Amino acid sequence: MPRRVTVSTTPLPPTGWAHAPRGAGERPGAFDVYDTTLRDGAQQEGMNLSVSDKLAIAPLLDELGVGYIEGGWPGAIPKDTEFFARAAKELRLRHAVLAAFGATRKPGVRAWDDPQVRALLDSEAPVVTLVAKSDIRHVERALRTDGPENLAMIADTVAVLRREGRRVVVDAEHFFDGYAYDPQYALSALRTAVEAGAETVVLCDTNGGMLPAGVFATVTAVREQVPDARLGIHAHNDSGCAVANSIAAVEAGAVHLQGTVNGYGERTGNADLLATVANLELKTGRHVLAPPPDGTGGLAELTRIAYQISEITNIAPFARQPYVGASAFAHKAGLHASAIKVDPDLYQHIDPTAVGNDMRMLVSDMAGRASVELKGREFGLDLTGQHDLLGRVTQRVKDAEAQGYTYDAADASFELLLLEEVEGGRPGYFRVESWRTIVERAGSRGTPATAEATVKLHAGGERIVATGEGNGPVNALDAALRLALLRVYPELAEFELIDFKVRILDTNHGTDAITRVLIETTDGTTAWSTVGVGPNLIEAAWEALTDSAIWGLRNRGVDPR
Amino acid sequence: MPRRVTVSTTPLPPTGWAHAPRGAGERPGAFDVYDTTLRDGAQQEGMNLSVSDKLAIAPLLDELGVGYIEGGWPGAIPKDTEFFARAAKELRLRHAVLAAFGATRKPGVRAWDDPQVRALLDSEAPVVTLVAKSDIRHVERALRTDGPENLAMIADTVAVLRREGRRVVVDAEHFFDGYAYDPQYALSALRTAVEAGAETVVLCDTNGGMLPAGVFATVTAVREQVPDARLGIHAHNDSGCAVANSIAAVEAGAVHLQGTVNGYGERTGNADLLATVANLELKTGRHVLAPPPDGTGGLAELTRIAYQISEITNIAPFARQPYVGASAFAHKAGLHASAIKVDPDLYQHIDPTAVGNDMRMLVSDMAGRASVELKGREFGLDLTGQHDLLGRVTQRVKDAEAQGYTYDAADASFELLLLEEVEGGRPGYFRVESWRTIVERAGSRGTPATAEATVKLHAGGERIVATGEGNGPVNALDAALRLALLRVYPELAEFELIDFKVRILDTNHGTDAITRVLIETTDGTTAWSTVGVGPNLIEAAWEALTDSAIWGLRNRGVDPR
Repeated sequence: MPRRVTVSTTPLPPTGWAHAPRGAGERPGAFDVYDTTLRDGAQQEGMNLSVSDKLAIAPLLDELGVGYIEGGWPGAIPKDTEFFARAAKELRLRHAVLAAFGATRKPGVRAWDDPQVRALLDSEAPVVTLVAKSDIRHVERALRTDGPENLAMIADTVAVLRREGRRVVVDAEHFFDGYAYDPQYALSALRTAVEAGAETVVLCDTNGGMLPAGVFATVTAVREQVPDARLGIHAHNDSGCAVANSIAAVEAGAVHLQGTVNGYGERTGNADLLATVANLELKTGRHVLAPPPDGTGGLAELTRIAYQISEITNIAPFARQPYVGASAFAHKAGLHASAIKVDPDLYQHIDPTAVGNDMRMLVSDMAGRASVELKGREFGLDLTGQHDLLGRVTQRVKDAEAQGYTYDAADASFELLLLEEVEGGRPGYFRVESWRTIVERAGSRGTPATAEATVKLHAGGERIVATGEGNGPVNALDAALRLALLRVYPELAEFELIDFKVRILDTNHGTDAITRVLIETTDGTTAWSTVGVGPNLIEAAWEALTDSAIWGLRNRGVDPR
Repeated sequence: MPRRVTVSTTPLPPTGWAHAPRGAGERPGAFDVYDTTLRDGAQQEGMNLSVSDKLAIAPLLDELGVGYIEGGWPGAIPKDTEFFARAAKELRLRHAVLAAFGATRKPGVRAWDDPQVRALLDSEAPVVTLVAKSDIRHVERALRTDGPENLAMIADTVAVLRREGRRVVVDAEHFFDGYAYDPQYALSALRTAVEAGAETVVLCDTNGGMLPAGVFATVTAVREQVPDARLGIHAHNDSGCAVANSIAAVEAGAVHLQGTVNGYGERTGNADLLATVANLELKTGRHVLAPPPDGTGGLAELTRIAYQISEITNIAPFARQPYVGASAFAHKAGLHASAIKVDPDLYQHIDPTAVGNDMRMLVSDMAGRASVELKGREFGLDLTGQHDLLGRVTQRVKDAEAQGYTYDAADASFELLLLEEVEGGRPGYFRVESWRTIVERAGSRGTPATAEATVKLHAGGERIVATGEGNGPVNALDAALRLALLRVYPELAEFELIDFKVRILDTNHGTDAITRVLIETTDGTTAWSTVGVGPNLIEAAWEALTDSAIWGLRNRGVDPR
């Protein structure tokens, strides 16, 4: 049933913002890749991103070459308000533009008076993406207002943001369901947004239940009926078709693609931006990414970027993930084994190096001789032509990574391993005799627990015993090690532990599982990372702590005393 | 370049099999759901199915209502030969038919003389599925024969199997790539199979790189060019589109669908049969499953069957899996919670009970009273109208989540929090006096570290002191707590810790950072998750361990002793 729709907007108030933010005057490109990992992706069960996590993920997305990074909902979520404030000072993006997510004004108030709308302006994000209702049932039952007022909310809010110099994208929530139920109302929401100045209207499959044929038909119909709209797609994976639905929309004419890294998101997740972009670039011939021109990012780094982001989110990578998964190009020996060796292209849908992945994808293959050689050069070691040495190091890396070590995220530990092979051992700054840590809660619930550690070691010709206290066992061990070494190596006073990450590698064995500890240390000038692995978390942490002290001292040019 | 193709077949030898197997005379139905979990799914990295595993999975597939169960490759894989032998004696399937997978005869021998072909007959499977080359490049480079001989291999092998009373399906391997490269040769392989008596020819996207539009176009073209062929689809997920590709093929006229439970398979896996079938049944109106008429199986049992099969394969279920995943109908956004309460169908693409799944509300700092109320309902607590109580709980959740707790991943801890507000406290199973854990390495590098823990607590009117050992401090504490409680609560013997996750929440403070520990426990029937938070990792783990014991005992209906 088509409805008559009238839009009544409230008059615009005087402007209160003196300066439009940087980049706000720019126009969209031919095709937008719009990442919403930090906002919609963060809705995933069990994911809880800190402001620092978000600030660490954004440069990786920029490096990949996405056009837009949706950072969160300033005003509604305090952490997101802080993200935009810190991003304005700390983030230096080369290509991507930050977008703030928010909603149209509340029913019955002026957009200008709605604190949620004001917070979007305060965020200083050059692009604001507004979620707007386009399904009349949601307008009436969830917003509890009527069709015309919802359209006025869209028109007012877009107009205020435009007047303040923001570029505006409108996410038409539940669009596909709304269009199926009442196409005229759904279309009127789009038309209202476009007329008020939204540069793109995004058709959202919010409940994620669409199939590609339906997406293609709807996007085609919308293009015919709202020909002046620039269309986008936002898909969820509830039917297992989010990637295919996104591609169907692009094939029907959408030029703005929303998705999340690794398909993170609520329920079954959002469209996996990585697989969608790889499909578009490698299979449909579209160039949709804009990586840095120095060749350090882009599609060829897809696997590394996916992996680094999953380290930050601390969500274990899914081995079967298309393109970037550890198994994505792993062939089980059998029927094809000999033929694959001769003609790998007959057995792979793409060349895995196009997305930075590897055919055999054993961890060892990521660190082949060539990368060991390159890595050595970074540390000032010329290993050209040293085949035996490179072979030994590659083998040790392979063995260590099979145990759970990861050197991608622990350069300093890798350099120590390399030194052992090149120089026959590590620098002998100290020799540990033993260590012990005790954690106890001496009373009932509510009594705080205490932690202490004792380290016995030999350095500078002395036997040193030192005891440290801390909030927890690793902290106490760090304190004890530092105290013991400071007498002989006062340089350690400047070292500070800045990051400590624990990852359970094999979750099938409960507390028996293998644990990996990554530690990052700084001396104020340089930051370095070390790794420890073992069934005992404390032992793994101890390994990373001692590696950190050794690498730091050597980096400062300190000789063993 | 179309090629001229001639087929020369070898004459059929005399029959040696007296009886065609049971069911062999049946014809395919209107639509085949053909499961290959036990054969192609078993190619997944890290999967290793025993004969007993396969015999346990097959009845679950039958219960779901699939038409065909491909059991393996008898003759090529000894375990699969044994599977068919035992299946003939032990398996009682109500609807599904067993299929044996195999290959066309070797080049240059008679089908009758090829032991691999004889083993297919020996398996007594009523249906034999033959993999056949349809990409001329694979014929020449992998098989190392020529186009006509490959067609003869197809014709001969199908004819022998048909003559012995077997129904024959032909999997045209690499069909889509082969058709793109040399359509005439690819089509000639299909025609040869059909003319020799194959009842269905299956178009395989063996490398998994297709997109839905290409699948639709190719299947449509094949239907026009080989109109007498009954077509099937076999898709892999390398482009992330296996489900959509399967549906595209069905929409283009394929009536035979191959796939695996949970999308198991080599590389990125096969098409997930569960999501594909659910989409076909619930979204395209096709009835493709034939569950037992007593109502004990079928789509409404999809989630349970997926879960039971993942228990047998011992591969952890993927929470975001469409339809059956633990998160598939879990809602986090506070934005929607109040509306979901009124109108759940507005926020879900299907009614989750249609696939035996359940809506869950995740409690997080984004949530409000409405989600707490819904969560209470999950636990059997009607909190309707209890505004003060809901307000207190919501506030406690917000405070706790600000400290680092996360309840969306720790239902059991949330229920204990709720009980404290509703019943004024937690069940008093035990009172902890103190605990202590010691981790030490008594020697230099290479000496293993040891961990022990001592717990002092009061339960069952006694003061109990127990000491446990373990690989690490958490493991040791778990052992000590269990040992202390077992005397009073023997029910604890069935509890097992199955997952342990550590997350450092604020990475700006090194080892001083706040740590969150999530623990998952099972008693064989139910699995539950608890959370602990604090600057001391061990203290956080202790909190999660005790919450786990309390929730588990209460869930078993145990009274405090």
